[in-house]
Amino acid sequence: MSSPLRLGIAGLGTVGMGVVGIVQDHAALIAARAGRAVQIVAVSARDKTRDRGRDLSGYAFEADPVALARRSDIDVFVEVMGGHEGPARAATEAAIAAGHDVVTANKALLAHHGQALALAAEAAGRSIRFEAAVAGGIPVIKALTEGLAANRMRRVMGVMNGTCNYILTRMEATGQGYNVLFQECADLGYLEADPNLDVGGIDAGHKLSLLAAIAFGTEVSFDAVELEGIQNVSLDDIRLARDMGYRIKLLGVAQMTGRGLEQRMTPCLVPADSPLGQLQGGTNMVVLEGDQVGQIVLRGPGAGMGPTASAVMADVIDLARGVRLPVFGQPAATLTRPVAARTATPAPYYLRMMLLDKPGALAKIATCLGEAGVSIDQMRQYGHEGVNAPVLIVTHKATRDDIAHAMGLFGGTGVLVGDPVALRIEEV
Amino acid sequence: MSSPLRLGIAGLGTVGMGVVGIVQDHAALIAARAGRAVQIVAVSARDKTRDRGRDLSGYAFEADPVALARRSDIDVFVEVMGGHEGPARAATEAAIAAGHDVVTANKALLAHHGQALALAAEAAGRSIRFEAAVAGGIPVIKALTEGLAANRMRRVMGVMNGTCNYILTRMEATGQGYNVLFQECADLGYLEADPNLDVGGIDAGHKLSLLAAIAFGTEVSFDAVELEGIQNVSLDDIRLARDMGYRIKLLGVAQMTGRGLEQRMTPCLVPADSPLGQLQGGTNMVVLEGDQVGQIVLRGPGAGMGPTASAVMADVIDLARGVRLPVFGQPAATLTRPVAARTATPAPYYLRMMLLDKPGALAKIATCLGEAGVSIDQMRQYGHEGVNAPVLIVTHKATRDDIAHAMGLFGGTGVLVGDPVALRIEEV
Repeated sequence: MSSPLRLGIAGLGTVGMGVVGIVQDHAALIAARAGRAVQIVAVSARDKTRDRGRDLSGYAFEADPVALARRSDIDVFVEVMGGHEGPARAATEAAIAAGHDVVTANKALLAHHGQALALAAEAAGRSIRFEAAVAGGIPVIKALTEGLAANRMRRVMGVMNGTCNYILTRMEATGQGYNVLFQECADLGYLEADPNLDVGGIDAGHKLSLLAAIAFGTEVSFDAVELEGIQNVSLDDIRLARDMGYRIKLLGVAQMTGRGLEQRMTPCLVPADSPLGQLQGGTNMVVLEGDQVGQIVLRGPGAGMGPTASAVMADVIDLARGVRLPVFGQPAATLTRPVAARTATPAPYYLRMMLLDKPGALAKIATCLGEAGVSIDQMRQYGHEGVNAPVLIVTHKATRDDIAHAMGLFGGTGVLVGDPVALRIEEV
Repeated sequence: MSSPLRLGIAGLGTVGMGVVGIVQDHAALIAARAGRAVQIVAVSARDKTRDRGRDLSGYAFEADPVALARRSDIDVFVEVMGGHEGPARAATEAAIAAGHDVVTANKALLAHHGQALALAAEAAGRSIRFEAAVAGGIPVIKALTEGLAANRMRRVMGVMNGTCNYILTRMEATGQGYNVLFQECADLGYLEADPNLDVGGIDAGHKLSLLAAIAFGTEVSFDAVELEGIQNVSLDDIRLARDMGYRIKLLGVAQMTGRGLEQRMTPCLVPADSPLGQLQGGTNMVVLEGDQVGQIVLRGPGAGMGPTASAVMADVIDLARGVRLPVFGQPAATLTRPVAARTATPAPYYLRMMLLDKPGALAKIATCLGEAGVSIDQMRQYGHEGVNAPVLIVTHKATRDDIAHAMGLFGGTGVLVGDPVALRIEEV
């Protein structure tokens, strides 16, 4: 058996302590599987003295994560602090400069600096592994980078923010509005310090950008992800979509088209009886579509101590076994710079609007759609609420530009009350 | 870039030609990801001359797969012939003896000889990879061996024979009986040459035994898998189970208990709204439960040219990248010999029986259950058909022995018409 693999762990929060727990509790199991022991040599955290419920006295303590990253007695720097600048970035750079492999759960860091960090790591003959950064405990980075490596990927999709999916499924189940459930999540501690990372789709967008880089062999380009959060998803839309056989999800989609790479993280409709439509609560799901394999669906816990630490330790065990792959599945220097394409792949759209109770109102709307080249698949007019009638339309496949064109024309008809809503229906 | 990885492919059927197709069509993609080219050097098949729709003239042809396996100009022997004895076994042994790595889609071979082959390969410093042998295109071997390597596995479950799931879902959808749909599958070419491999649960049992070995660090013990096929699943049970909120699946379950390793591949009930319950048609699903990660569900195509070749090539790309792990996730010499435990984990059971339309009949059945220590969760008596009344009972958790005891007591009551049916309800 080879010499032990030595870890330095930066961050002793939930994830960090989960990693400590696995190393302590599963030492024999890991040694059997990895072919060598995995040891913790040193740790770093803001507060040394806090009781974290485990004996850390055998580990050297560094107040500064950069100092931890530079220690010559570690092999792998485990970064579970978070934050895409400041100490997390500085320490990761220092670890690479010191010749260490890095295992990180930090999606923000890689979404913003993944290409530069990967180039640096690979120039040093080291790797950065980040299974824990995307979809928590689901081994999706491994599935995509290795399990489906023989496929030209067609599309990658995912529900990858548990808080958003929790809010959306609770809205349907309880009939409570977004604001009430947002507050519930805040009270339960489900939200990031900056809640916009969750509900604005940013966190999930970070994850999508990492999957897209691997899937399509392109540099990470988070800035090109079209982001729309769930703040404006209404109870009405959740109910009416359900009525038409759909559910609303904050869904990420990345696909390579003739025009370039489309990446979006937006609320959209999926069939209620599809695996994505059936996904409830905080669970995550990733759908990987390859030209050979067809569709693979992975489902599991997207957050939490055990799942996230499981993913971190999978990367650690890979390194202990001597597996060291390029960060994004092929050398960073060979990744192409993607052309960012605005979403133009046609899809059916869900349209909701309130019409004045006037003769011919619906005909005017239908005329606008026809003028914009959008044809109607289904239409429902609901019982009148006072003088206004809610109307739902599901279109045949149309481009977003065509839909925007039609929505612009609606304005001139004088029959609309308030703003119409348009949501993409993703075919899954 | 390193020298090319050279393949010898034994078997040019659907899977073999799928592999040839990927190597030919995705050469640049694979070279970018693997860091080196992957080449086919030689092939073997029964019939050299048959037109297979691709140019094979650049490859040496061996009539004998053993001769192919012994060639010194290959690095990896790809076995996609099938069969657990004869040429497949001889050629695999020859490849290992010649110092080659092996990639195989042959679940039967490994279920019967996996331990001996793994010992031989590892003694030679080589590996046998078999992603394609279990659940087709789903990268489940990788997920279990690597992605969840930090977990003590609790339970592994799977619907892993597409033909059986196709028959069961078609029975529900069409109301046609087993025999009709069996014949349909035969006509469609969905069945193995020996159909009992499919409908008898053997093929799926092979797969389960391989997953169990990895999950629990035990030698493959296919002989200890409790096997029951779908031949006796009746339309009545499918309908009545559905009525109670369940679906019947040919489900494999492996779990380590205090008494030993339970492995079973049997028809059982799962909640209709669970991921397993919602699985339709030929799709496969594997559920992996670890102490850290919780539950991971993987879903995808379980057979077919593209999916199976995708899995074969994932293993090939791993080898091209220099990844060479122990066959079953830890050295074969360290796997323990499992104690085979008959299923004793308590579970709810579904019981169906026909009662004579006599006063007190139901009370007698209830008394038998009470005597056997089995308590009743739900009971339904259906409208009388002539003089007999079908009765459904869902029990609280009970052991199989308790259920068998109760069923024995039923016989003495004189109120039963025909044999009662008992099916386990697996909690998922």
